[in-house]
Amino acid sequence: MKGDKRPIGIFDSGLGGLTVYKAVRELLPGENVVYFGDTARVPYGTKSPGAVIAFSKEISRCLFDRKIKFLIVACNTASSLALEEIRRISPVPVMGVISPGVDAALAMAPRRGRILVTGTSATVASRAYSLALLGERPDVHVVEKACPLFVPLVEEGWCGKPLAVLVAREYLAAFKNKKFDAVILGCTHYPLLKKTIRRVLGPRVRIVDSAMAAARVARQALAAAGILNSGRFGKAFFMVSDAPGRFSELALRLLKIKTGEVAVKRF
Amino acid sequence: MKGDKRPIGIFDSGLGGLTVYKAVRELLPGENVVYFGDTARVPYGTKSPGAVIAFSKEISRCLFDRKIKFLIVACNTASSLALEEIRRISPVPVMGVISPGVDAALAMAPRRGRILVTGTSATVASRAYSLALLGERPDVHVVEKACPLFVPLVEEGWCGKPLAVLVAREYLAAFKNKKFDAVILGCTHYPLLKKTIRRVLGPRVRIVDSAMAAARVARQALAAAGILNSGRFGKAFFMVSDAPGRFSELALRLLKIKTGEVAVKRF
Repeated sequence: MKGDKRPIGIFDSGLGGLTVYKAVRELLPGENVVYFGDTARVPYGTKSPGAVIAFSKEISRCLFDRKIKFLIVACNTASSLALEEIRRISPVPVMGVISPGVDAALAMAPRRGRILVTGTSATVASRAYSLALLGERPDVHVVEKACPLFVPLVEEGWCGKPLAVLVAREYLAAFKNKKFDAVILGCTHYPLLKKTIRRVLGPRVRIVDSAMAAARVARQALAAAGILNSGRFGKAFFMVSDAPGRFSELALRLLKIKTGEVAVKRF
Repeated sequence: MKGDKRPIGIFDSGLGGLTVYKAVRELLPGENVVYFGDTARVPYGTKSPGAVIAFSKEISRCLFDRKIKFLIVACNTASSLALEEIRRISPVPVMGVISPGVDAALAMAPRRGRILVTGTSATVASRAYSLALLGERPDVHVVEKACPLFVPLVEEGWCGKPLAVLVAREYLAAFKNKKFDAVILGCTHYPLLKKTIRRVLGPRVRIVDSAMAAARVARQALAAAGILNSGRFGKAFFMVSDAPGRFSELALRLLKIKTGEVAVKRF
């Protein structure tokens, strides 16, 4: 007996959540995973709370039908706006990516430390990170900055171009010498721009990759609930709401993930 | 009697179609207009034909319910992929933005002329412009180039930044000295980047703005059908599928359009 073989569900607005999938694969190689990317309605980051909640519940229900044992909401926007609503309808434990990132950042920040949060317009407008950070540690100083062009830049596969540095500079150069103790990448696309962001903010800046932080918390939660699968060769199954070919192609090009056949579920 | 007072319907995936709305206002000041932006599912340009067709039919039905007399599909992607499907369910005449742009470009191109088409990934992948251009004039030489970052750049309000020139250069610098007789802006967002595109392609390049071309064709079609409204003060009514506040704010900032109250219709 290698433990609970039911899959973990991971969902995102598109392919950004694949950074979480990759971290889960690395830390929990035995787990089976069902990934759902809502590619028909991507991006979520510029949409209203009502829309994000409705879309998130639809995707979650689809994953419950696949008999998952645990759900990771791998989209910061959905985690900011829809987590409670998903938990209300979920038969299994649900985690988001905000609180793991918050805990990792607070571990780096001294008393009265300074934390910079980057994210989509919707995530920043929700103030989910500020509220969570200050809820745990009212002494820290938090600045949030929306970087809406980062997602399309990643989706275009331009992370390595000089242009990426210019876009990052446009958003972040003003923060370079402000002595932040931690910078949270509050969008699952952003780890793909980590080097670029480091180049703009300086080599000493400590970056919290919410994908990796989320995978660590998932491992703890699965172990605590006694539903870990300690095998070695977990399987993955990918679903999208549109354009499976494009999803496969970008997963391979940007993240070196071979998806195999991608299923399509239309809403 | 000032003619037919029923409104013209204009639809787009988001706010790009407002360039068509503006051109219609200018050429047909007496017409009442209902504009629908599918802001819950924008952008269409990276989505599959099946999704674009389904979304387009939903929006069109919603405009038919508002008793429109004429429908302008002001989204190049929807015009490329869904025009026939919309016509099949429409009780009123329907026009897209592809064929007006094609005719305007062909008027500029001599025999064996060269035409460059810029557009979203979906529009370029559909080859709608190439097929239409070559269908009318098999002698011309057509090159199509997808510029997926232009739409988010416009939506960020960065059209005037030096960065916009760099993005345009990334896509278009290779075409600078290729002696094109006409360049089609095959996306309704792109007229907002017209100056930038001219800077990259050179001052002599002749740019076809499909928004203005579409408004001219609409005027002819309305006159021919005897349903023109020759009054002077047409009214506008705006609808979106999500985030009306953001739509209003961007309409004002990018295009100086005062939308007034924006209605929301969720799907």
